[in-house]
Amino acid sequence: MAVLGLDIGASKVYFVALEGNERVAEGVFENSPPTTQKLVETAGQIKTGLDAQKVAVEKVGIGAPGLPQDGTLSFSPNFVELVNYPLAEKIGKIFGGVPTVIHNDANAFTYAEAALGAAAQLKNVVGLTLGSGLGGGLLINGQLYVGKGGAEIGHTILNLRGNEEAEDLASGKFFKKRGKDPKGVQDRAESGDKKAQEIWEEFGGNLGYLIANIVNILDPEAVVLGGGIAAAYDLFIREVKKTAAEHIVSPTSKKVPILKSSLGPAAGAIGAALLAG
Amino acid sequence: MAVLGLDIGASKVYFVALEGNERVAEGVFENSPPTTQKLVETAGQIKTGLDAQKVAVEKVGIGAPGLPQDGTLSFSPNFVELVNYPLAEKIGKIFGGVPTVIHNDANAFTYAEAALGAAAQLKNVVGLTLGSGLGGGLLINGQLYVGKGGAEIGHTILNLRGNEEAEDLASGKFFKKRGKDPKGVQDRAESGDKKAQEIWEEFGGNLGYLIANIVNILDPEAVVLGGGIAAAYDLFIREVKKTAAEHIVSPTSKKVPILKSSLGPAAGAIGAALLAG
Repeated sequence: MAVLGLDIGASKVYFVALEGNERVAEGVFENSPPTTQKLVETAGQIKTGLDAQKVAVEKVGIGAPGLPQDGTLSFSPNFVELVNYPLAEKIGKIFGGVPTVIHNDANAFTYAEAALGAAAQLKNVVGLTLGSGLGGGLLINGQLYVGKGGAEIGHTILNLRGNEEAEDLASGKFFKKRGKDPKGVQDRAESGDKKAQEIWEEFGGNLGYLIANIVNILDPEAVVLGGGIAAAYDLFIREVKKTAAEHIVSPTSKKVPILKSSLGPAAGAIGAALLAG
Repeated sequence: MAVLGLDIGASKVYFVALEGNERVAEGVFENSPPTTQKLVETAGQIKTGLDAQKVAVEKVGIGAPGLPQDGTLSFSPNFVELVNYPLAEKIGKIFGGVPTVIHNDANAFTYAEAALGAAAQLKNVVGLTLGSGLGGGLLINGQLYVGKGGAEIGHTILNLRGNEEAEDLASGKFFKKRGKDPKGVQDRAESGDKKAQEIWEEFGGNLGYLIANIVNILDPEAVVLGGGIAAAYDLFIREVKKTAAEHIVSPTSKKVPILKSSLGPAAGAIGAALLAG
């Protein structure tokens, strides 16, 4: 029997089926623009595919972009149809009414990387997902920390004078404001384009400030970066580390490891499955 | 037998002797400018006083401004003589060689308020000490969280363009930059001086940004404010709550309780004793 993990994003849906820690099936579907109707169809296709592979699902874990509450989301700015939609019930029904739980997608990512990925065996870990927005998850004393409801690291203010949030400065929004897309800037920078490289350096500096703030508050053992933009890790990580070290106070924490996701784009789905298992 | 708590600040040293949760002795000494010589003399005077009251000390807990490590501090920008000074050994010796432990002062404050003060019975609490600097402590799942070493919430960046840290904007440094002292501005504001009241409103707005950031990262059940500047709570709290609510994302967390310390100036010393007991 397998546990199915779904990572529902505003542009893609990843799935993975785990037997223990082993991936027995995985894949990705387009989901842009995101609608609950398309999501249900996607879940139906995943079910058909798993049936064909004779993978039986006993539990489902969902990583979703927002604040999970009672089988739905109470807040989901990038996928508004999910708010108050009976997500756990609808998805669970497709797989025969199996138990289905929802976690915040960045929490699922962080849990996966700390269980099986770049931060394996560490107990105090911050995970950041750099995509169209910026999500964050916290592992504290080996456990996922969700506070009263949900953390929204992407909305921490980095410039109160200009009202700039972390997400404006260190996610896809940073590129969107410049009329660019991250993949294009990545391609040009990797081809040696100086201007494109400088954009990544600015992005890295911004992310360095956010990470310094997080480290000055939580002093974790490691920070793990995921999401689509983490693919450009080599282009921005030097500036991240430089700026973070300048602003982290504790001398022993200036060199906090800032790692790239090792589980790749399915990390969130893996975490959702592990959390449900 | 009593547990002695000392809260060592850059301007004052508070002490309290606890038998269980009951305060059997307490007091305060001047410590400005701070030197280790003066500190040792102060500890001697506290010992003499306790002897006269027939209070026997079995353990000592110290709250100190910096990063505790192996019986000393590895970092203490506001009391530099403490760095690498054998603080636990020297103080313990004065009280007959009893076990002596050091915690960060803001951690001790937070622990006390969550145990016996404004946040009693809560499990996820952020404490902020507003004094000549700005300290922070975290209680997570009912336990003091110290990360790899120490958190430095006061040094989180609130304005990366102008390189302004929380401490520049929401501690005594905010007043110092204006050539003023908080107590004077408090007195004038309480006498109805409009300009003085506006200074407190600006201070409150700044603190509101910091609290929004902390809530967006940690989503605690409550934030507790202590330190000398918390005495002006009524002058700044409305702006704190307004700005925080504007920038906290989770709808359920916009009204997070932002409380005034209920243990008063001895809170840090009480926490240090509780942590040693």
